[in-house]
Amino acid sequence: MRQRLVVIGGDAAGMSAASQARRLKGPEELEIVAFERGHFSSYSACGIPYWVGGDVAGCDELIARTPEEHRARDIDLRMRTEVTELDLSGRRVRTRDLESGAESWTGFDKLVIATGARPVRPPLPGIDSPGVHGVQTLDDGQALLDSLAALERNGGTGVPPARAQPRARGRAVVVGAGYIGVEMAEALLNRGYEVTVLNRGPQPMATLDPDMGRLVHKAMDGLGITTVGDAEVTEILTGPDARVRAVATADGTYPADVVVLGIGVRPETELARAAGLPLGGHGGLLTDLAMRVRGHEDIWAGGDCVEVLDLVSGRERYLPLGTHANKHGQVIGSNVGGGYATFPGVVGTAVSKVCDLELARTGLREKDAREVGLKYVTATIESTSRAGYYPGAAPMTVKMLAERRTGRLLGVQIVGREGAAKRVDIAAVALTAGMTVDAMTALDLGYAPPFSPVWDPVLIAARKAVAAVRAAD
Amino acid sequence: MRQRLVVIGGDAAGMSAASQARRLKGPEELEIVAFERGHFSSYSACGIPYWVGGDVAGCDELIARTPEEHRARDIDLRMRTEVTELDLSGRRVRTRDLESGAESWTGFDKLVIATGARPVRPPLPGIDSPGVHGVQTLDDGQALLDSLAALERNGGTGVPPARAQPRARGRAVVVGAGYIGVEMAEALLNRGYEVTVLNRGPQPMATLDPDMGRLVHKAMDGLGITTVGDAEVTEILTGPDARVRAVATADGTYPADVVVLGIGVRPETELARAAGLPLGGHGGLLTDLAMRVRGHEDIWAGGDCVEVLDLVSGRERYLPLGTHANKHGQVIGSNVGGGYATFPGVVGTAVSKVCDLELARTGLREKDAREVGLKYVTATIESTSRAGYYPGAAPMTVKMLAERRTGRLLGVQIVGREGAAKRVDIAAVALTAGMTVDAMTALDLGYAPPFSPVWDPVLIAARKAVAAVRAAD
Repeated sequence: MRQRLVVIGGDAAGMSAASQARRLKGPEELEIVAFERGHFSSYSACGIPYWVGGDVAGCDELIARTPEEHRARDIDLRMRTEVTELDLSGRRVRTRDLESGAESWTGFDKLVIATGARPVRPPLPGIDSPGVHGVQTLDDGQALLDSLAALERNGGTGVPPARAQPRARGRAVVVGAGYIGVEMAEALLNRGYEVTVLNRGPQPMATLDPDMGRLVHKAMDGLGITTVGDAEVTEILTGPDARVRAVATADGTYPADVVVLGIGVRPETELARAAGLPLGGHGGLLTDLAMRVRGHEDIWAGGDCVEVLDLVSGRERYLPLGTHANKHGQVIGSNVGGGYATFPGVVGTAVSKVCDLELARTGLREKDAREVGLKYVTATIESTSRAGYYPGAAPMTVKMLAERRTGRLLGVQIVGREGAAKRVDIAAVALTAGMTVDAMTALDLGYAPPFSPVWDPVLIAARKAVAAVRAAD
Repeated sequence: MRQRLVVIGGDAAGMSAASQARRLKGPEELEIVAFERGHFSSYSACGIPYWVGGDVAGCDELIARTPEEHRARDIDLRMRTEVTELDLSGRRVRTRDLESGAESWTGFDKLVIATGARPVRPPLPGIDSPGVHGVQTLDDGQALLDSLAALERNGGTGVPPARAQPRARGRAVVVGAGYIGVEMAEALLNRGYEVTVLNRGPQPMATLDPDMGRLVHKAMDGLGITTVGDAEVTEILTGPDARVRAVATADGTYPADVVVLGIGVRPETELARAAGLPLGGHGGLLTDLAMRVRGHEDIWAGGDCVEVLDLVSGRERYLPLGTHANKHGQVIGSNVGGGYATFPGVVGTAVSKVCDLELARTGLREKDAREVGLKYVTATIESTSRAGYYPGAAPMTVKMLAERRTGRLLGVQIVGREGAAKRVDIAAVALTAGMTVDAMTALDLGYAPPFSPVWDPVLIAARKAVAAVRAAD
């Protein structure tokens, strides 16, 4: 009997699931209907900063697969259609066509929830003013670009440019100094803006320990990006034309022609909550290893709307990342299609860059380790990306956390230049394998002068961590 | 009672061992005497191609620690002193001062053998002619540079340059297309030479499978390096001045103003053999996990004169690499100094580059797997170093071998451009941990558009390998 799979959300997780299910089951066995409320399907939101910054020519390049391409593969993807209700006992979803306003019900045999995330948007005075932008969707990116283009046509606001950047095209304030915040800071700097980043914590990149975040802060200073720590935004100030003029914090006011919000995202799980599906402490859906919603045989969930198991701490975390969403979709599609696959969890790897500064992390920070009751030692070393004598050898700081007594690797953070960030993968695999720092010192990593010192920086950190483990007991 | 440690060989393994032993035991407890027959201590032979090619200004930069620096740390390093005999029952070594010719005996309580390797130098007619160079030691590198400088002063040999490279400074033939061969080809190309590489096998880089070597061949062609496969050198032809003029093979004659030999090296174990120490099938010393020579309590060996355990095949291999030598030295020094450390073995990781071509390998090739009786499947994929839309995304080919039925990862080979080679570290750690390709598909690797496609190329290869494992049974 032909079954119907309904997919809520037409981006990475949802459409990967649909595509993989289609690979395994033809349309005669499985009908696939997917609903997406936005204008775009299967795109790389992670690419938005590079589109805004001009590294990527147009948003088309960020689209992995268009709605037409999905439809050509017998996936009935309905764009601009919002799912407004989830009726579990009736096994149906109510949808609204956002163009016509028409509503209808669609039944399902199997359901994939891939509703993604929504950006945090605190209810501050002025936050809805023209010139204040989130960067969660391609629509958001386009709106920001339109806003920048208008500013650039008008030659900014007529306020004299700051002395330090005499040719700035305008003043941008970025609220938040996480991945999106620092990537948007780079994008706006590359576009010629004077950029100020307002950060709630003491250092940018709270996903790093403060000592490593300090290195990022210093490097951003060096790039001409002003980063203000401990800055809690209280209001967005607007001019007589209602456009943004400045961002106010308790301690100061920062003139702004454009404001970008990069404060983070929350799982978009209102539908699921209303339907009574199980949510975790971070508000994300809880799934089993096959990405099935816990306790629901025919309902799967993946991507930015779910919580994931952190293999290092053993706890659920909320880690909205395109790479996880793609994996979730693959696993869900395999299972829906009658195959078998699991998503065992994450170790919390992330990489980013700000101009030529690279940063990376995996595993637990000091704070994370304390929270789950792990005693740890740390080792921080400085080395270079290539043999010291080889041209382009760039400095790199590696911090490693290891469990006391057992010496089990708990986490690694790296801040450096070219060649720094992806070295974190070594630690990501070692964490997954549960290696000790002692075992890591013997790792047979690739060595040649253009690629590494004779002791790779990660090995040097491991050696120092071994000494720290010994010294602690 | 004060003991004496004698170290034979003053390069990476020997001096790392001496330094680490000194860290753990002061001169009042342990006297350390080291003998080195050459002019240099503790240097990076791997850096010689980059010195010759002009990336590194002088050989001083390749020296990690000078004899004076070692002596300042109470290590009695005697340069230009060759150990000519090893008297095990008398616990002494006979040495000859290569300057004065004076001979003497030195007793030891503990001995470290770090005699390194000697280059293969087949007894071909003309091989000892001026203009034919090995590149094993800094002395070799200096001799080659002197030879090139003389050529360049004389404007080459007066032979009209080839049309393709009208401004070539001379013609160089490199014999051998392994790491040293391809790195020297790059060096000579960078110096402005017309370069021909003569290779005994069908494809360059026999440490890769032939299908991957073919990619290297093609890329070298694109760089203007002529690579001749199945070329067995029969003679070095010289002119009336006795200088090299050409290299002859069975199939052709290749004009040459300078010849570089990169045919590989063999363990330098004549002393050890004469003393009756245990050697393996590759002629290298056999040690235990603590790097003790098997059956000899107070004798250690490390670096290019030992065989190492291949953790994937379970067999001994000969893998002379600076990074292993440094680790051996560290382990030996810890044990000699009263600590405890082991060298568990290698997985056979190596990386190299030829201009902007990067290549890497770890684990077993198809041939290696067959030799040890492993059934395997292969998966080869093409991807890019960054998100496809991100500037600088460079193509990369990844080949993965997995064991049939179990899906255990057996090896990975990568050929690509910037960002390709060091990705092999992911596989090196996975091999060490004994991961299956199925487990690898879930690895939480660093993703951001400037660093990787949303599925890292290694993950794409793992997915394809999983499918191949399934299809094979």
